[in-house]
Amino acid sequence: MRYGARIEYDGTDFFGSQIQVGRRTVQGELEAALSRISGGAPIRVETAGRTDAGVHAAGQVIAFSYGGTLDARRLARSLDALLPRDIALRRVWQAAGDFRPRSAARDRQYRYTIWNGPRSPLRERFALGVRDPLDVAAMAQAAAAFPGRHDFSAFGGAHRQPIRTLHAVRVRRMGHTITIDVTGDAFLRQMVRRIVAALLRVGRGEATAQDVVTALRSPGQAFAGATAPPHGLCLRRVRLKMELAAARRNGA
Amino acid sequence: MRYGARIEYDGTDFFGSQIQVGRRTVQGELEAALSRISGGAPIRVETAGRTDAGVHAAGQVIAFSYGGTLDARRLARSLDALLPRDIALRRVWQAAGDFRPRSAARDRQYRYTIWNGPRSPLRERFALGVRDPLDVAAMAQAAAAFPGRHDFSAFGGAHRQPIRTLHAVRVRRMGHTITIDVTGDAFLRQMVRRIVAALLRVGRGEATAQDVVTALRSPGQAFAGATAPPHGLCLRRVRLKMELAAARRNGA
Repeated sequence: MRYGARIEYDGTDFFGSQIQVGRRTVQGELEAALSRISGGAPIRVETAGRTDAGVHAAGQVIAFSYGGTLDARRLARSLDALLPRDIALRRVWQAAGDFRPRSAARDRQYRYTIWNGPRSPLRERFALGVRDPLDVAAMAQAAAAFPGRHDFSAFGGAHRQPIRTLHAVRVRRMGHTITIDVTGDAFLRQMVRRIVAALLRVGRGEATAQDVVTALRSPGQAFAGATAPPHGLCLRRVRLKMELAAARRNGA
Repeated sequence: MRYGARIEYDGTDFFGSQIQVGRRTVQGELEAALSRISGGAPIRVETAGRTDAGVHAAGQVIAFSYGGTLDARRLARSLDALLPRDIALRRVWQAAGDFRPRSAARDRQYRYTIWNGPRSPLRERFALGVRDPLDVAAMAQAAAAFPGRHDFSAFGGAHRQPIRTLHAVRVRRMGHTITIDVTGDAFLRQMVRRIVAALLRVGRGEATAQDVVTALRSPGQAFAGATAPPHGLCLRRVRLKMELAAARRNGA
């Protein structure tokens, strides 16, 4: 039987989502727990989106096959009890036999959180601390350049096909907290963190919104601004195509 | 010159606030940073309130003496730059020569946070996860027994003089988050965490508000309920007597 699930994790103590020999990873912990349930048989876990070391997830989607038909609720309870404190299973469902979370994902929503105030260890566990004043209006103006279909090679790891479609990039301030929400159908490697680094340059007055537009039109040259650190980033939601289909059927 | 300071820390990776040989502590890290500023001379740091291993602080008050007169702002900058990521210096001021934070503290405010929802690694870094439904109205009713001057030996570590005065114990729910705010002039060892454990028993229906009243009238017998885990607890604020005096002078 094929199952899908939503999971949440605190990425601080993981070397990312994808399995690596000798490293603690989200996939590794999930596969170890599933293997205990299946009496030792190895079970392969697939994820909808790769997250790098230190990146968190509130709504990652995974899939796996399990020999036998276990009630989804019972499976969720057994599996969740075997997972470490920093990974939780939020929902498990019986999926179609060919369910692949990567291709079933319609879009992905990430949030990057910045603590733009005095140094605060309690805030900066899940947010990037930035002491310089940031011009959020300028950042929002620059963010408006990203939505749409572009060659994102200036803002992502090398890929032979660097065209992606972003739906929205929203920058908001509430007190000392600045959030950058990025929604798109798919992403290049470290793309959100490179977009955030570019917006931080704009916020500090080191680059302009026009520089961002120019970079989007000059694929191949990396935008100066490197990559924002991982601990401010969270994969908040993966929306599946079947959810959209169901919502349309229900007239939503 | 004598200095006072407010500090914030993420208690996760500390063996508490007070120095211990061979352990990473808040006091140990502060004294190491101060000793670097003073060219190696040891400097003793005092805290207004001891926090146990894993307990956080947003507004702990400390004091130390430094040979020489350094501008408080400059000292704050130098010292903060030498502190590890999980301790921050919020404010430094020149204090009276006899300033002792423990005796200068007028009252202390603690917050205990409970995540009363589905298991959530991102929430439970700084909150106790409780899956059972909790009756917050019953908890609030029981909490009303604590304010006032009582022998708290049923809710604190052994002490030859266990009489303390609590000013307020407030229980509130916002969605899945329950906060318990406890304000008092001084506390016995683990007193907040034992009060929280007692309120959790009431919230689960294992004890009544009357049981709490009875325990407060029966000093010497520990209230069944042990001690709530440290990671949900934060020392939010230490109010100093001089602040109150200044507020009164200003007509506040």
